[in-house]
Amino acid sequence: MSSSDIFTSEVLGTMVLVLLGGGVCAAVNLKRSKAFDAGWVAIAFGWGFAVLTGAYIAQPSGAHLNPAVTLGLAIKGDTAWSDVPVYIGSELLGALLGAVLVWIAYYGQFQVTLREPEAVEMRKANPGPVHGVFFTSPEVRNPVQNFLTEFIATFVLLLAILTQGLSDNGKGLSTLGALITALVVVGIGLSLGGPTGYAINPVRDLGPRIVHALLPLPNKGGSDWAYAWVPVVGPLAGGAAAAGVYNLAWG
Amino acid sequence: MSSSDIFTSEVLGTMVLVLLGGGVCAAVNLKRSKAFDAGWVAIAFGWGFAVLTGAYIAQPSGAHLNPAVTLGLAIKGDTAWSDVPVYIGSELLGALLGAVLVWIAYYGQFQVTLREPEAVEMRKANPGPVHGVFFTSPEVRNPVQNFLTEFIATFVLLLAILTQGLSDNGKGLSTLGALITALVVVGIGLSLGGPTGYAINPVRDLGPRIVHALLPLPNKGGSDWAYAWVPVVGPLAGGAAAAGVYNLAWG
Amino acid sequence: MSSSDIFTSEVLGTMVLVLLGGGVCAAVNLKRSKAFDAGWVAIAFGWGFAVLTGAYIAQPSGAHLNPAVTLGLAIKGDTAWSDVPVYIGSELLGALLGAVLVWIAYYGQFQVTLREPEAVEMRKANPGPVHGVFFTSPEVRNPVQNFLTEFIATFVLLLAILTQGLSDNGKGLSTLGALITALVVVGIGLSLGGPTGYAINPVRDLGPRIVHALLPLPNKGGSDWAYAWVPVVGPLAGGAAAAGVYNLAWG
Amino acid sequence: MSSSDIFTSEVLGTMVLVLLGGGVCAAVNLKRSKAFDAGWVAIAFGWGFAVLTGAYIAQPSGAHLNPAVTLGLAIKGDTAWSDVPVYIGSELLGALLGAVLVWIAYYGQFQVTLREPEAVEMRKANPGPVHGVFFTSPEVRNPVQNFLTEFIATFVLLLAILTQGLSDNGKGLSTLGALITALVVVGIGLSLGGPTGYAINPVRDLGPRIVHALLPLPNKGGSDWAYAWVPVVGPLAGGAAAAGVYNLAWG
Repeated sequence: MSSSDIFTSEVLGTMVLVLLGGGVCAAVNLKRSKAFDAGWVAIAFGWGFAVLTGAYIAQPSGAHLNPAVTLGLAIKGDTAWSDVPVYIGSELLGALLGAVLVWIAYYGQFQVTLREPEAVEMRKANPGPVHGVFFTSPEVRNPVQNFLTEFIATFVLLLAILTQGLSDNGKGLSTLGALITALVVVGIGLSLGGPTGYAINPVRDLGPRIVHALLPLPNKGGSDWAYAWVPVVGPLAGGAAAAGVYNLAWG
Repeated sequence: MSSSDIFTSEVLGTMVLVLLGGGVCAAVNLKRSKAFDAGWVAIAFGWGFAVLTGAYIAQPSGAHLNPAVTLGLAIKGDTAWSDVPVYIGSELLGALLGAVLVWIAYYGQFQVTLREPEAVEMRKANPGPVHGVFFTSPEVRNPVQNFLTEFIATFVLLLAILTQGLSDNGKGLSTLGALITALVVVGIGLSLGGPTGYAINPVRDLGPRIVHALLPLPNKGGSDWAYAWVPVVGPLAGGAAAAGVYNLAWG
Repeated sequence: MSSSDIFTSEVLGTMVLVLLGGGVCAAVNLKRSKAFDAGWVAIAFGWGFAVLTGAYIAQPSGAHLNPAVTLGLAIKGDTAWSDVPVYIGSELLGALLGAVLVWIAYYGQFQVTLREPEAVEMRKANPGPVHGVFFTSPEVRNPVQNFLTEFIATFVLLLAILTQGLSDNGKGLSTLGALITALVVVGIGLSLGGPTGYAINPVRDLGPRIVHALLPLPNKGGSDWAYAWVPVVGPLAGGAAAAGVYNLAWG
Repeated sequence: MSSSDIFTSEVLGTMVLVLLGGGVCAAVNLKRSKAFDAGWVAIAFGWGFAVLTGAYIAQPSGAHLNPAVTLGLAIKGDTAWSDVPVYIGSELLGALLGAVLVWIAYYGQFQVTLREPEAVEMRKANPGPVHGVFFTSPEVRNPVQNFLTEFIATFVLLLAILTQGLSDNGKGLSTLGALITALVVVGIGLSLGGPTGYAINPVRDLGPRIVHALLPLPNKGGSDWAYAWVPVVGPLAGGAAAAGVYNLAWG
């Protein structure tokens, strides 16, 4: 597959992933949304089906959508190392575009949440609602612990993705495989999302964080760059570790 | 496939789509329903499985159920332009029938909600519960913003539907494809339904709106025709745009 | 397939269907259950996955589990009329056994709900929690309306089941077909369960109602036999109507 | 398949099962988790998708993950009795590792829940939150009743797993079979989890209970060894009974 085909597929797929994933955070966290306060089950299924939709759209390129997946597949040997830069670049670009689309789709809700006087007061006390649309934050802030949580959650994700080849006879991502990967992501969200909000994908966190920093949102607060390395390095390390275990166990 | 086969399949499928979709809105919004106040997760899964059921029933005709899908598939080249009128006409007729069936299935709940004195008072303050069974309304009313939200949500839907051909080797809608499309719709509802209630389908909104205008419901309020163009034009434009992107990317 | 094979398969499948279906009603409605008050989403998914489990177990006989399904398949011509009595008899026996197993599995919760003094008082005011484990009750009692709701809901169920043959090339119930039928049942529960509790299956209601009448439950109240015909006749009529429409449309 | 391959596959699969299953209990029960109080629907889907993820990873060895499954498959004849010890040993080791990983992933939440003064007071009144992460406890404590509930729930699980061979032509666990088994587990959780918390798997309860006894958690309370036999013996007996019924019915 040519670099240009990878680029098209991964940009569109990751854009949709981040649009729907950021979208469900906006839907549940922002006032004047019909899904306001719909709870963690909505968040977990929303992100899982965001993966499903993005993966379905990006099937031509294997639907990595995530540098941790690209890294794991490269270590396993399914993806050529020479293709890694175009994958990761496309994923980051897609994530940037997706975050901008969330802002457009929820423009009215952002305005209400950010501009109304009581909302401004409320946001001084709890910056979470708007931040949570763009990037993850830990509930108990401790970089080592938060790193370990992201490491473990991404380790599970990659172990599931890498063993898929075992069951599907190495035919690449099947439609059924995309569905199961999506439900695995729902499961990771329900089970391991509690402490850090489960980035488990460097660009899903870094892309929207950059957009948050650049967008002209009133009263938006800082973009918490001190924490930004955790949801980048944790998933990459966890994904690499899963690929190492895979190669030891079944390679 | 003959026009008469398309007609039968799309009328039945769209009827069931709107019956189950309007049904879950009635189930969650109307008093004296066992599902009263079951929340947005119920709405999103209810509409998604409405798509699944309608798509399963309408598989012989490819289960468009939605003029935005018909338009997108025509632009892509999967559906003949000469078949477009019978598809769209059948979809609208199915939507009208489905909305009437919702009214019959929830007749007792409509009577209670619309006739009881305190309910009438309540409805003066908030017309939403009964309106929401028939048509969508934006939470923050701004036609341009609402149009963009419907555009984006339908763009995602069509991108997923159009790329299905890539994974299923162009064999038309498979059973697994119907399931995944349904879960994509759950995802769009969870993630992008917050601002406008995600019509993402012209007839899903217009058909029941016409039925609302015609039915002899007491104290029913107006049918909000000023907004009616948004959930018609937004989805059609978003679907056409997705088909254009598809043709550029993979055509 | 021999009558004895049908008997084994349908008794076990329907037993599991009613065990899990009645189980989720007990789980959500009875005090001292970990799922107490888990809401309508739990009920709808619980019944849907009850269908999935029962259908999976009863695949050898086509997994009817429901006289309305047996009737519809006989009208369509997929099931021999001479097999109908053994199907329906097995389904009723399975439903009786399943209801007894619910009672055993939730024995402690029934005791607490039925015997504790405050619970007895509570139950005088609202007999629903224990009744709802065994049989359906309408929220707005009107036999004609309630009949129509059950008719419509079962019509949708059978239309989906009958058209399955179209997509699966008449190979009988596939594993994927069982999954989709189960999700259709989740959808019917979410969308059309509000008014009557969606029996959509004569034995699912009649079997446990008989068990309720016979079990030595203290303070159990009457078994509401006046309503018992609705969830029997409504589903049979709706299923027959769907088969008629199927034969007209695609027969 | 060699013992060493079984060992690798079952250890990894059961580790992930218990990590995600214990994880969702931590996510919902511990303070300062984003999923705090997300309810029983989250628990049931979390455990079901834990099974999905573990089963997907352990497909090379048939994904038993559970001594009751191993026993049932041995009685049916699908698994050699000589392989039973390595299966059960691997499952127990995996469960021990998974419970430790839950502790690491939720370290911050455990610290908050166990150490903060008001939390300590709260935990004296209700030891459930932390205990529930590691092992099951009945709501109404009566060993015979609790045994019967675990027996029935595991009987259903094994009946579904054993009949899978009927539909999949004995090809071993398919990807679709893993998905359906996972949804069956969601169903068992929703429907039969209310009384005892549905261990339905000896090592899922015993492994984390051992870890709870050994971990240096402050104010952790006892490990309730008096109840520990129920979630071990109940599932084994229920699984064996299902295999006996299977052999009688279809053997």
